[in-house]
Amino acid sequence: MDREQALKELELLQKKLYAYNAASSSLFLDGVTVAPGDTAEGRGVALGILAGEEQKLMTGTEMGELLDFLSSGMEELTDLQQRQVKELKRHYEEQKRIPAEEYMEYTMLTNEAGDIWHRAKEASDFEMFRPALEKLVDMKRKFAGYYAPEKKPYDALLDRYERGADMEYLDHFFTVLKERLVPLIHAAGEAEQVDDSFLHLHYPAEIQRKFSDYLMEVMGLDRNHCTIGETEHPFTLEFNNKDVRITTNYCEDSLADSMYSVIHEGGHALYELGISDELAYTCLTGGVSMGVHESQSRFYENIIGRSRAFVSAIFPKMQEFFPEQLGNVTAEQMYRAVNKVEPSLIRTEADELTYCLHVLIRYEIEKQLIGGSLEVRDIPQEWNRLYQEYLGVTVPDDRRGCLQDSHWSGGDFGYFPSYALGSAYGAQMLKNMEKDIDVWGTVSKGDLSSVTGWLREKVHQYGSSREPGEIVANACGTFDPTVYTDYLTEKYSEIYGLKK
Amino acid sequence: MDREQALKELELLQKKLYAYNAASSSLFLDGVTVAPGDTAEGRGVALGILAGEEQKLMTGTEMGELLDFLSSGMEELTDLQQRQVKELKRHYEEQKRIPAEEYMEYTMLTNEAGDIWHRAKEASDFEMFRPALEKLVDMKRKFAGYYAPEKKPYDALLDRYERGADMEYLDHFFTVLKERLVPLIHAAGEAEQVDDSFLHLHYPAEIQRKFSDYLMEVMGLDRNHCTIGETEHPFTLEFNNKDVRITTNYCEDSLADSMYSVIHEGGHALYELGISDELAYTCLTGGVSMGVHESQSRFYENIIGRSRAFVSAIFPKMQEFFPEQLGNVTAEQMYRAVNKVEPSLIRTEADELTYCLHVLIRYEIEKQLIGGSLEVRDIPQEWNRLYQEYLGVTVPDDRRGCLQDSHWSGGDFGYFPSYALGSAYGAQMLKNMEKDIDVWGTVSKGDLSSVTGWLREKVHQYGSSREPGEIVANACGTFDPTVYTDYLTEKYSEIYGLKK
Repeated sequence: MDREQALKELELLQKKLYAYNAASSSLFLDGVTVAPGDTAEGRGVALGILAGEEQKLMTGTEMGELLDFLSSGMEELTDLQQRQVKELKRHYEEQKRIPAEEYMEYTMLTNEAGDIWHRAKEASDFEMFRPALEKLVDMKRKFAGYYAPEKKPYDALLDRYERGADMEYLDHFFTVLKERLVPLIHAAGEAEQVDDSFLHLHYPAEIQRKFSDYLMEVMGLDRNHCTIGETEHPFTLEFNNKDVRITTNYCEDSLADSMYSVIHEGGHALYELGISDELAYTCLTGGVSMGVHESQSRFYENIIGRSRAFVSAIFPKMQEFFPEQLGNVTAEQMYRAVNKVEPSLIRTEADELTYCLHVLIRYEIEKQLIGGSLEVRDIPQEWNRLYQEYLGVTVPDDRRGCLQDSHWSGGDFGYFPSYALGSAYGAQMLKNMEKDIDVWGTVSKGDLSSVTGWLREKVHQYGSSREPGEIVANACGTFDPTVYTDYLTEKYSEIYGLKK
Repeated sequence: MDREQALKELELLQKKLYAYNAASSSLFLDGVTVAPGDTAEGRGVALGILAGEEQKLMTGTEMGELLDFLSSGMEELTDLQQRQVKELKRHYEEQKRIPAEEYMEYTMLTNEAGDIWHRAKEASDFEMFRPALEKLVDMKRKFAGYYAPEKKPYDALLDRYERGADMEYLDHFFTVLKERLVPLIHAAGEAEQVDDSFLHLHYPAEIQRKFSDYLMEVMGLDRNHCTIGETEHPFTLEFNNKDVRITTNYCEDSLADSMYSVIHEGGHALYELGISDELAYTCLTGGVSMGVHESQSRFYENIIGRSRAFVSAIFPKMQEFFPEQLGNVTAEQMYRAVNKVEPSLIRTEADELTYCLHVLIRYEIEKQLIGGSLEVRDIPQEWNRLYQEYLGVTVPDDRRGCLQDSHWSGGDFGYFPSYALGSAYGAQMLKNMEKDIDVWGTVSKGDLSSVTGWLREKVHQYGSSREPGEIVANACGTFDPTVYTDYLTEKYSEIYGLKK
């Protein structure tokens, strides 16, 4: 084998990984959109086979030998080629450490657990989910050892969603959040509440659809490369950097829900669409980490989308779409309404300010759970205690408590912190962006092109060709969670008339 | 390797073929329905890779050794296992005879040719398509030798779409058709034309959609296993026998177009959904041949769907959906309108009676083309001459002439005859069905369950587990094209008041 031939093979292997991914994405998308109701079984067979083939490709002799050969002459490769080899090797070695039968057992368990969780949530019955969750926690602890034998188990899991973010990093981060946000939320709760009743009039889905089209236009999402669909839970699905789909869900008695889910998913989409063409069909395309991805979606959703400048810019158009509902509302009232702070039970429906505390609670529970100081059976009690302590809300049942999120049923322990990290990264990106461009001047004209241009340059274009930490540093500088808490303190003190 | 293990492997290999198929189908479906406009490239990369992997699996050492091993002890296998081994072996050997680089060249050529044909059709410029078509004809002639070295080239190609149907079989078939139908069509043309003007009033797509739902209900298509979508050209796509999709296209100035495309595709869907569960995920699932598939779709579309009994049964409901358009129309007028005979230019829009002559023209041209007695450059002239001779219509341009169908651009020479064969099979199925059940008594009540039950028993359940010829014989008896021409003669003589 010579180097040129090896590089060609590496390119082909990565294209194959891309193809398996695209195939699975397509089947998944079909399943949650247009597929007939009773067809999950056949799709499951196909998805299982494809996952197995991908796994075989990723851990096969061909891949192993190729990576060994190329690793032995890294200095001859371009930077991007070196990074491809390193990333694939890391993934290869990690996968190789997992015994095949355990991997299969794990795949089956997460499939089953998803169904069980669904039913347990509907029945609001944690005990129904407990045995599966116990197995998952045990298995995930064991897998943590395969992922990164030298790390503490929870650190090993965290690392998979946000490389470099460990408990030390997150403890510091969340301590700052807790110390600064809990009193702020408390103070806002004492102040006069804002009125958002006009957000809950009747908003016909048909007009909301047109409003979504408008929002995508404002965001600069090219409809030739990004469509919007409707699913129970909104998501973004990327096939490649020229083909991204977002979805939303229309509630006819709430304007803001779908509006902000479109902007949130639109932020994910802009990230994927902004990745450099030279990374296409390689392992270096796609967003680099969950934290960085959430930094983009939550940046557009909250920092831009819930800013006074943005709301004022699009408000005349909102009134055009919904003249009856919003005819007597002012832009300022709308700004305050979409920023209403109200401690609540459900993470995905939480406002910008209380959101991170929902995440903190999950972080604390996961840390204890994987660390071994909390038993699965004690989760509900601990969950309810923390909601009371941090958010002052009483959890009435497990459905609206510790059964609300699907993540654990899929084995995704360590994923939650990325939501909060992303939010904090965004605040620092804003600070740096404001030094370079006239953020609010352009946004107040309804023009997001400079904002997106800045993010494309600092974040999007790189895809996964750099470490998450490098990309964060490039856009944020040194991570400092107080920038985020300062941003929140300033914004919400003003809205709620609090002393800072 | 022991037999049990080998059979397990055979099962897995077939499941993989199913998975590749499902993946490609899903990507294809996405492409023609919801995918953003400018995303074909990335989907093409994935589809190309998947096709390559499927080909590699089908011709790989593993498959070869497995089939050899199992072939050597066929008597120990069940009938279905034997048939799986035989079918896979046939496919394996055929694929192995094609040199890999020629196969790739062919794949690339058909991909390109599809685009070229599209543009040539739009420009109505045969010369634009000619060079690609010449290459395709040359290559297909060569491939015919790989497919079946012992056969004449066109016979080898025909065999791929309808095993057992060769030129001798088809010459006889089409001669009967030509002799009996050309005079009948001529006579109908001399008689007083039926009025179908009410089919071309304004029919809003929104109500047509609801009408389609009703038609699917009448056909007994379970919406939990079969959905309907909208695409430029209607088609049926089967993932497995529990998951089939049909599509249609709504013209607002024509009621019958979409109505009969739904019934036609619904017929294909009923076939796929009726295949026995024991064949699932093996090479024996799926309809057995194009001819048998068309026999089902055209049976529902024409023999049932355009029957007096069916039209009368659904007519009250049609009036309910379209009270303004059909308030003053009678069921008998509707029956005559949907059976209007009018020689025309476009195959896919042709009526039941003239349809087979469109196919005959293509058969005669392909036969000469692959046989070597017609040059590609002479196709337009020959096409136009035959349309004049058989149908009495003057072809004004190539767009509405020899460029109208996509088949040749995809290398599908030998496919067309299945449309006509299927129609003829259907007439014989009707004759036998009438001996067993009260076809028109049940259909006139809007109840198709006995009809579908009969077809399921005689045709659907078998999937590809028997030879096309066996399935046809099982449902039709000995093939006799005069049964079909008699059926047409009787039906249209009555409608047009002709002496028989």
